Amino acid sequence: MTTHSAVLGAGSWGTTFAKILAEAGNHVTLWARRPEVADAINASHRNEEYLPGIGLPATLTATTDAQEAITGADLVVLAIPSQTLRGQLEGWRAAIDAEATLVSLMKGIELGTTMRMSEVIVEVTGVSQDRVAVVSGPNLAHELADRQPAATVIACTDSGRAKRLQRTTTTPYFRPYTNVDVLGCELGGAVKNVIALACGMAEGMGFGDNTKASLMTRGLAETARLGQALGADPQTFAGLAGLGDLVATCSSPLSRNHSFGVRLGQGASLAEATAATRTAEGVKSCRSILDLAIKAGVDMPLTEQVVRVCHASVLPAVAVKQLMGRETKSETA
Amino acid sequence: MTTHSAVLGAGSWGTTFAKILAEAGNHVTLWARRPEVADAINASHRNEEYLPGIGLPATLTATTDAQEAITGADLVVLAIPSQTLRGQLEGWRAAIDAEATLVSLMKGIELGTTMRMSEVIVEVTGVSQDRVAVVSGPNLAHELADRQPAATVIACTDSGRAKRLQRTTTTPYFRPYTNVDVLGCELGGAVKNVIALACGMAEGMGFGDNTKASLMTRGLAETARLGQALGADPQTFAGLAGLGDLVATCSSPLSRNHSFGVRLGQGASLAEATAATRTAEGVKSCRSILDLAIKAGVDMPLTEQVVRVCHASVLPAVAVKQLMGRETKSETA
Repeated sequence: MTTHSAVLGAGSWGTTFAKILAEAGNHVTLWARRPEVADAINASHRNEEYLPGIGLPATLTATTDAQEAITGADLVVLAIPSQTLRGQLEGWRAAIDAEATLVSLMKGIELGTTMRMSEVIVEVTGVSQDRVAVVSGPNLAHELADRQPAATVIACTDSGRAKRLQRTTTTPYFRPYTNVDVLGCELGGAVKNVIALACGMAEGMGFGDNTKASLMTRGLAETARLGQALGADPQTFAGLAGLGDLVATCSSPLSRNHSFGVRLGQGASLAEATAATRTAEGVKSCRSILDLAIKAGVDMPLTEQVVRVCHASVLPAVAVKQLMGRETKSETA
Repeated sequence: MTTHSAVLGAGSWGTTFAKILAEAGNHVTLWARRPEVADAINASHRNEEYLPGIGLPATLTATTDAQEAITGADLVVLAIPSQTLRGQLEGWRAAIDAEATLVSLMKGIELGTTMRMSEVIVEVTGVSQDRVAVVSGPNLAHELADRQPAATVIACTDSGRAKRLQRTTTTPYFRPYTNVDVLGCELGGAVKNVIALACGMAEGMGFGDNTKASLMTRGLAETARLGQALGADPQTFAGLAGLGDLVATCSSPLSRNHSFGVRLGQGASLAEATAATRTAEGVKSCRSILDLAIKAGVDMPLTEQVVRVCHASVLPAVAVKQLMGRETKSETA
């Protein structure tokens, strides 16, 4: 099934997903904010800043004109920074085809509203929820751009739409599974950035794999607690969009949230870490996630400590000590 | 609460656990099979072969006489290779105090009988099940010996005994949680060695973190399926003895199962990998685990492929391709 796809956002994940769509046989137009990025993709089939060393398919074309990319597309894929989504979509919504599927590759929670990305999409565009899908899993962009095998989850409340999207995006190296739990997939993706920050901090402080594995286990447990309180399927967190995405992100030196955390753990200030790695999504989203947890009455001690480090000048050493030093009782208490 | 403890087995985990017990204030005697290991521990407080660079407490004494270590001990900790447990215990059982708690640090399934280590202990010694505890979690020995913070699970069907053991073993860097699900903890520990072999193979073949995270996610899912069929609490697999132990083992270059798998993935034969890293527990246990799965009627595709590589001369490349190439449908199907 061949589609006309618009991928909005030429960062590493947006460009990689556009490459996957093109290699799966679809017509793809990639929107880049900056003309030099679009020009390089069209002229030399490269996006060196975000995917160094990777050749892009000649059939993949780029533009800086979002309207042009969106018009007539039956698949509109959104891959821009979470906190800019609302503003951008307001300018784009008129061009979106009445039958198009909207796909979110974004992993954030909107500041202030505590809305997930699919909720922002529904609110701004007015499309029904069953036309919005999310893609989430152990999908480090550089590895997928290099065609290393990975599985992922395509979640949509309309399971038929999820299956069509699965067929559209499957390649020999990219294997999507369908799921109807959009909420769980989005929460897993958003909170894992916060856990990756914490694991990075522990690593930067010189702690090893036992400590990181403990943080990941407790972090996933608090994600699942939040998810259950909000109505997600607890199974989702044990799957590719929960555990899978978390493990890949926390293991990889390529993950921006992880390396941002490493720098903080090594003693860099927030400003220094931001200068070195660009802003990490988790730094912004941790506050919205904690707001969501407070509203839902759920205890998220790891997220709370990350918020304190990122937004209240608490030292990572103090935060990690607090986390590891809590009174331990029964594992399930 | 101070105990007289015997730790039987002076490999890296046995020695580290003896160190933890001693640093928590207990009287500890460590049994080593080889006189040179016992002598070095007594004379220079070192076990260089298994814990290079680590100084042991002067209060920790070693012996090659297991009877001497066991007699009068109220805690008998077993840390020997899984497949040798039955034979060794038969020689030791008469010396075990009638009130002693038996603690298993072992992570295997007995070949032939498909019994877990706690089951072997109960059968051979005749003690009641509620006197047997297991310790399992993200506990890479070298990191704990270096006093890096880690959490763990102490599982015992007698929750009071688990709590006493928790108090006995807690140190500022070692934080045990109690659990009553002995079965789940033992399965998590045993199957994770098999998953670590698979992740090692993928790494040795040049695959990155997406692939490894996918294998870990699917591997934990098949472990939980087996556990549920046998009566374990599914929650256990999301906890420290499931996810936590799995992530630490699969992430660490220090894990023997992982590095054994890496060598296989790089093209070494079984004999070559064994020569380079000593035998990895998972190589033996994978067959017992598959037997257990077949008896329980549970599908364990990852374990099956590891068995084929380790015992039927199938190439890792073929096995990984088979795993990644299965038909994908819904994530929960």
